[in-house]
Amino acid sequence: MSTKITAVEVHDVRFPTAAAGDGSDALNRGDYSAAYVELRSDARDGTVGAGLAFTNGRGNELVCAAVRALAHHVVGLRIEDIFAEMVPFWRSLVADVQLRWLGPEKGVIHLATGALVNAVWDLRAKLCGVPLWKLLASMSPAELVATVDFRHIDDALEPQEATALLEQAAAGAEERERELRAVGYPAYTTSVGWLGYPDEKVRALVRAAVAGGWHDMKMKVGLDAEADERRAAVIRSEIGPDARLMMDANQVWGVGEAIERMQRLAFAQPYWIEEPTHPDDILGHARIARAVAPVRVATGEVAANRVIFKQLLQAQAIGVCQVDACRVGGVNEVLAILLLAARYGVPVCPHAGGVGLCEYVQHLAVFDYLRVSASLEGRMIEYVDHLHEHFVDPVAVTRGRYQVPRSPGYSVAMRPASVERFSFPDGEVWT
Amino acid sequence: MSTKITAVEVHDVRFPTAAAGDGSDALNRGDYSAAYVELRSDARDGTVGAGLAFTNGRGNELVCAAVRALAHHVVGLRIEDIFAEMVPFWRSLVADVQLRWLGPEKGVIHLATGALVNAVWDLRAKLCGVPLWKLLASMSPAELVATVDFRHIDDALEPQEATALLEQAAAGAEERERELRAVGYPAYTTSVGWLGYPDEKVRALVRAAVAGGWHDMKMKVGLDAEADERRAAVIRSEIGPDARLMMDANQVWGVGEAIERMQRLAFAQPYWIEEPTHPDDILGHARIARAVAPVRVATGEVAANRVIFKQLLQAQAIGVCQVDACRVGGVNEVLAILLLAARYGVPVCPHAGGVGLCEYVQHLAVFDYLRVSASLEGRMIEYVDHLHEHFVDPVAVTRGRYQVPRSPGYSVAMRPASVERFSFPDGEVWT
Repeated sequence: MSTKITAVEVHDVRFPTAAAGDGSDALNRGDYSAAYVELRSDARDGTVGAGLAFTNGRGNELVCAAVRALAHHVVGLRIEDIFAEMVPFWRSLVADVQLRWLGPEKGVIHLATGALVNAVWDLRAKLCGVPLWKLLASMSPAELVATVDFRHIDDALEPQEATALLEQAAAGAEERERELRAVGYPAYTTSVGWLGYPDEKVRALVRAAVAGGWHDMKMKVGLDAEADERRAAVIRSEIGPDARLMMDANQVWGVGEAIERMQRLAFAQPYWIEEPTHPDDILGHARIARAVAPVRVATGEVAANRVIFKQLLQAQAIGVCQVDACRVGGVNEVLAILLLAARYGVPVCPHAGGVGLCEYVQHLAVFDYLRVSASLEGRMIEYVDHLHEHFVDPVAVTRGRYQVPRSPGYSVAMRPASVERFSFPDGEVWT
Repeated sequence: MSTKITAVEVHDVRFPTAAAGDGSDALNRGDYSAAYVELRSDARDGTVGAGLAFTNGRGNELVCAAVRALAHHVVGLRIEDIFAEMVPFWRSLVADVQLRWLGPEKGVIHLATGALVNAVWDLRAKLCGVPLWKLLASMSPAELVATVDFRHIDDALEPQEATALLEQAAAGAEERERELRAVGYPAYTTSVGWLGYPDEKVRALVRAAVAGGWHDMKMKVGLDAEADERRAAVIRSEIGPDARLMMDANQVWGVGEAIERMQRLAFAQPYWIEEPTHPDDILGHARIARAVAPVRVATGEVAANRVIFKQLLQAQAIGVCQVDACRVGGVNEVLAILLLAARYGVPVCPHAGGVGLCEYVQHLAVFDYLRVSASLEGRMIEYVDHLHEHFVDPVAVTRGRYQVPRSPGYSVAMRPASVERFSFPDGEVWT
């Protein structure tokens, strides 16, 4: 039985979040949106592969258009043929002789690649009747390595090293799977500390979070220094000295400025500083990391591709790797980044929030624990309590832990009613 | 008298070059295209500001759509107000709170920014009745520095350093202008050595180029190693031992592979190796640069922004800075990069070819010589003899030197008949 991809459909879905101040930070004030992709197939039961790229509102139409521009590399292929030779398939998307100029491997075109590639994996997992993490965890080291394009990263990690690393990590995977099924995967919450929220709202949200079982929390920083210090003091006083307090500057600082501002915030004992400066500035992150230690530097949500992650790791610029499930070119490139992070001993705490990112990254974190890092030390999945109600198989987070997903696929299939209602510009919400 | 920008028009213009093998290299085989922008104004004579972003064919529609998504930051502004406070204007484009997510400052969205910003400068130069290079050369150090956004580069270059650098370089500018008007600016040609051309075509083209006054030439390399060696031998034997032979791998190699391949090509005494590996790989370029010296490493045509250039310079990864006029965010960001290159003592040899890039970069090179680097040592502008006939004010290159442009503006206004004929998908050529 082979299954052919017969069509690519893409929907411009936007949620009007900007007005509420949700998701506001030092540089973004978005209407959380998704370029939502459905792969139609000739499977007898009509199985659909779902993928999405998260965007911030305006410009979502560009990612949708990029999906259409790339669709010809996907339509007409058999899913079994794709998985028999994944690197040529992946390269057909990222090294299209004309579209590559628009990146390469970054921005609009790479977001579209991520949505398409993830939809292909979702389809595969659904056809196999397993969650994405389980599909990955069922693959041998050789099969996993065969999905990764090592071009431009083999100076840091050769295929043989990756295979050896996966072979070593395989021991105990079944026990870890039982553990996760029983107790879930640790998480932290970002829902308490957006810049758009006043201090007393922050205090109330932190108290509610602590009461709900949350231990570790993240706040946004980066604009007014005094306000950052005040809010940091509020949160630290509420969570106590032992909980982790993460800070996120969303790229707003220069290198020297980041170092100064973090000195002023040291009193609150931050666990990490996320996106302290421009996401392309590997050398800048490395300088900040040396200056603010033992506070870790974290980044990744807009790190364009595996080549950027490779260098962040080579330069010892990050202590936490925050890969995003759809910023890079889908599962294949995420695997490359998980392997690179393991090679350099840096924990992966995936970026989430937005639309569907929590649904996506739970699979990546579970797989990472089972088969790559084999450790939970310093690992947490981000959690934001927005917009989960629009997904067919939403995340289940209880008392600060993600429950392991059980439904087949990659969990980003959206409810048809939500797609219709929030479609831009013709959905009910926008007219 | 103040002039308001009343509308932004954008045209999807594509030239069917792929079929001929022109412009073919190790990773690209394109239909040379442009997202061509016209700013309408309320100037009494109807002056239009023209800008473009070069692309490789498919996906040009994405850059056109991105121009439309950004246009609201430009329409309705007075050109005098824009120039009175340029950094807030520039940031309104690159730090749009929603669109920024699609980059930031890279790919489709940044190409569109470049086209718009360049069109604003073109309009300004036309209103002043001078070529763009002359407009720039007429500005004081303080005025020039005020056009640059130093956010995220001030760890390498502070505004005061930039001002001092410009003040120092001002001496002798008039004499250098007379010199350039008399003898032109040195160039090299890339038209002889595309990968799509057979050896004997290469030999014939090299002979014709030498007869036409060309001294320095560039060949494409990167796929078949033996073919590269054979073609390098052909070209070196034709141009003699003293001419410069540049090589361009268009990103196809890994880091170790680049070093090995350049050892095999050392016999032909390359002057530089261009794009030896992935354009985001700063640390990789640095390693290659150390290994292949005295051959210089050159890159820039797809370096996304000033933060990437900053690091290439900080890491001593490049010996030649090949800034592109529209890959980065227009004249303002190019100025940042010219200043950074001067700060690190690295010559700028701008990327050209494509559609309109020669027309653009001649202005940048002339200005760099007059007011920033004050040197021609190791400096050449790339030249490719394609598609100039479609421009109102095409480059004039005689005996291997660019003649200084004299018409007002930035030289990328296209002939209306060409825009119409090559518009995609409805122009005559495409139907």
